[in-house]
Amino acid sequence: MSGMNRQWLLRSRPVGMVQESDFELKETPVPAPGEGQALVRNTYLAFEPAMRGWIEDRPSYMPPVGIGEVMRGMTVGEVVESNFEGLAPGDLVSGMAGWQEYVLGDALLTKLAPGTEPTFALSILGATGMTAYFGLLDVGRPQAGETVVVSGAAGATGSIAGQIAKLQGCRVVGIAGGPEKCRWLAAEAGFDAAIDYKREDVGVRLSELCPDGIDVFFDNVGGEILDAVLARIAQKARVVLCGAISRYNEAELPPGPSNYSNLTIQRGRMEGFIVMDFIPRFAEAAGKLTAWCAEGKLVWQVDVQEGFENAPKTFLRLFSGANVGKQLLKL
Amino acid sequence: MSGMNRQWLLRSRPVGMVQESDFELKETPVPAPGEGQALVRNTYLAFEPAMRGWIEDRPSYMPPVGIGEVMRGMTVGEVVESNFEGLAPGDLVSGMAGWQEYVLGDALLTKLAPGTEPTFALSILGATGMTAYFGLLDVGRPQAGETVVVSGAAGATGSIAGQIAKLQGCRVVGIAGGPEKCRWLAAEAGFDAAIDYKREDVGVRLSELCPDGIDVFFDNVGGEILDAVLARIAQKARVVLCGAISRYNEAELPPGPSNYSNLTIQRGRMEGFIVMDFIPRFAEAAGKLTAWCAEGKLVWQVDVQEGFENAPKTFLRLFSGANVGKQLLKL
Repeated sequence: MSGMNRQWLLRSRPVGMVQESDFELKETPVPAPGEGQALVRNTYLAFEPAMRGWIEDRPSYMPPVGIGEVMRGMTVGEVVESNFEGLAPGDLVSGMAGWQEYVLGDALLTKLAPGTEPTFALSILGATGMTAYFGLLDVGRPQAGETVVVSGAAGATGSIAGQIAKLQGCRVVGIAGGPEKCRWLAAEAGFDAAIDYKREDVGVRLSELCPDGIDVFFDNVGGEILDAVLARIAQKARVVLCGAISRYNEAELPPGPSNYSNLTIQRGRMEGFIVMDFIPRFAEAAGKLTAWCAEGKLVWQVDVQEGFENAPKTFLRLFSGANVGKQLLKL
Repeated sequence: MSGMNRQWLLRSRPVGMVQESDFELKETPVPAPGEGQALVRNTYLAFEPAMRGWIEDRPSYMPPVGIGEVMRGMTVGEVVESNFEGLAPGDLVSGMAGWQEYVLGDALLTKLAPGTEPTFALSILGATGMTAYFGLLDVGRPQAGETVVVSGAAGATGSIAGQIAKLQGCRVVGIAGGPEKCRWLAAEAGFDAAIDYKREDVGVRLSELCPDGIDVFFDNVGGEILDAVLARIAQKARVVLCGAISRYNEAELPPGPSNYSNLTIQRGRMEGFIVMDFIPRFAEAAGKLTAWCAEGKLVWQVDVQEGFENAPKTFLRLFSGANVGKQLLKL
């Protein structure tokens, strides 16, 4: 194997909205696999809003991506050469191989079960599905008959979280941007109702749709939507802090939710989690999610863009709300 | 029994800082006890910051005190006449008898065990001690060796919560206003350190005193102090929302803590509670707290003002930080 490897490096730390110019394309020779290594050609990159946090220079649950380093990201790739026992040319692997065409793989790359679609591996079986499963069930702990609200509900994670809540016997209200996303939530994903935050008053609609209060809120957005929900929580409510996409591209840290003190009056709890803490239980979740998909109980969407050169542009789609479902890039 | 009964009524709903003029003094005849009633002469009124919330006209865990109604509050009183089986003249009772000299008592008043000091009944055995006990132990769940921070630490509830944390084997840092309160925390209440928020940079001092992060925060204050703590929580931290005295007298709801999203990065939890939910377990807490006091393991302070006419003025002491320990009024 010879030729050139293209990589997207982090060029600068964004201040405010992340820009394509915060990344730079570099060409280097395709590396040769050493002892115990496999050479993998990435075929899909996966994008998620949390990656915006990975390029901030502050302490977090992972070290920040360094300036000049290959941008971190989940991938699926195909083994092209292998000195690694258990991997053979043609095998598909997934892992955190980053924004590059070729990577030297080792034990950190996981071989996909034969027949697994890369798009399925990167959405339902990837961080997205795992985040929805453990965030909703382990942190949110919904009970049958409860009212669950999901923000970013048409997004990859939100749509799965809401459907899992339906499978627990909950009433589920989604908040999303635009009539098409709201239609999909109600018509395809089985949500009981959807609120279009771009055209409706979220607080008024939540009061109408959740007259007995909100038992579980699965939040991907933060900001005014979180505040509107906190004003309407039921007793013993659980607010799952999955993400806060409205905050990620702010140059200054925005204020928190004024209504947080309603957690006292309603004896509520607001809790964050990091999906990597659940790695020992990923197989359990993968089994459940795969079965639900096979039975047609769980629908999911992927938004597949094309071309390695479009990686930064594709990442930015997450923050304009352009993506419909899991954002992937096919190389 | 005849004569006049003085009562403090709620005259107006405060906008911003509560004023003495929000209450009015009224004289009515002392009522005569009917069948199954006892006439009780209140001897102590107890005050707590949460009472500020009871005079707001908004949904909460109790209905608001109505305009023209006797101000709600915990009391200890002495039975002067009784048609209630089990109560005899001279018995001491505690309950929510409100800001008035005389009240008709019934089953809602609890007879104090003989020999119980009214000041002990209204602090350690009252809402204060119960709030500290259940808020810290059941919501905060401190483990030996953990770092616990308490705001409003020299206050009635905060000082007990911090000492209970010490009894669990935790390192305890208190935040209080003024050198005298901080001296008392370290010298008398056994806190490991105290931060004077009026003279020190709370964030800088927390970073110095809690280099491994804050495991449990027992918050009575809210505002900037809560934000400074959230920026410094350890993994799996628990933030106990006991109160938010910095917010109670604001005419407009202040913003929430910007750093709430650190709950996600640190997999933390922020949780509120209402002490009344723990009524079935009050006897357990009373037993533990009484034993700790008897063994000299728990110190507590009461601030006893005098004269029924001073009830509103005494209530306001809570919000200027004038009180040292549990604020009581002896009638």
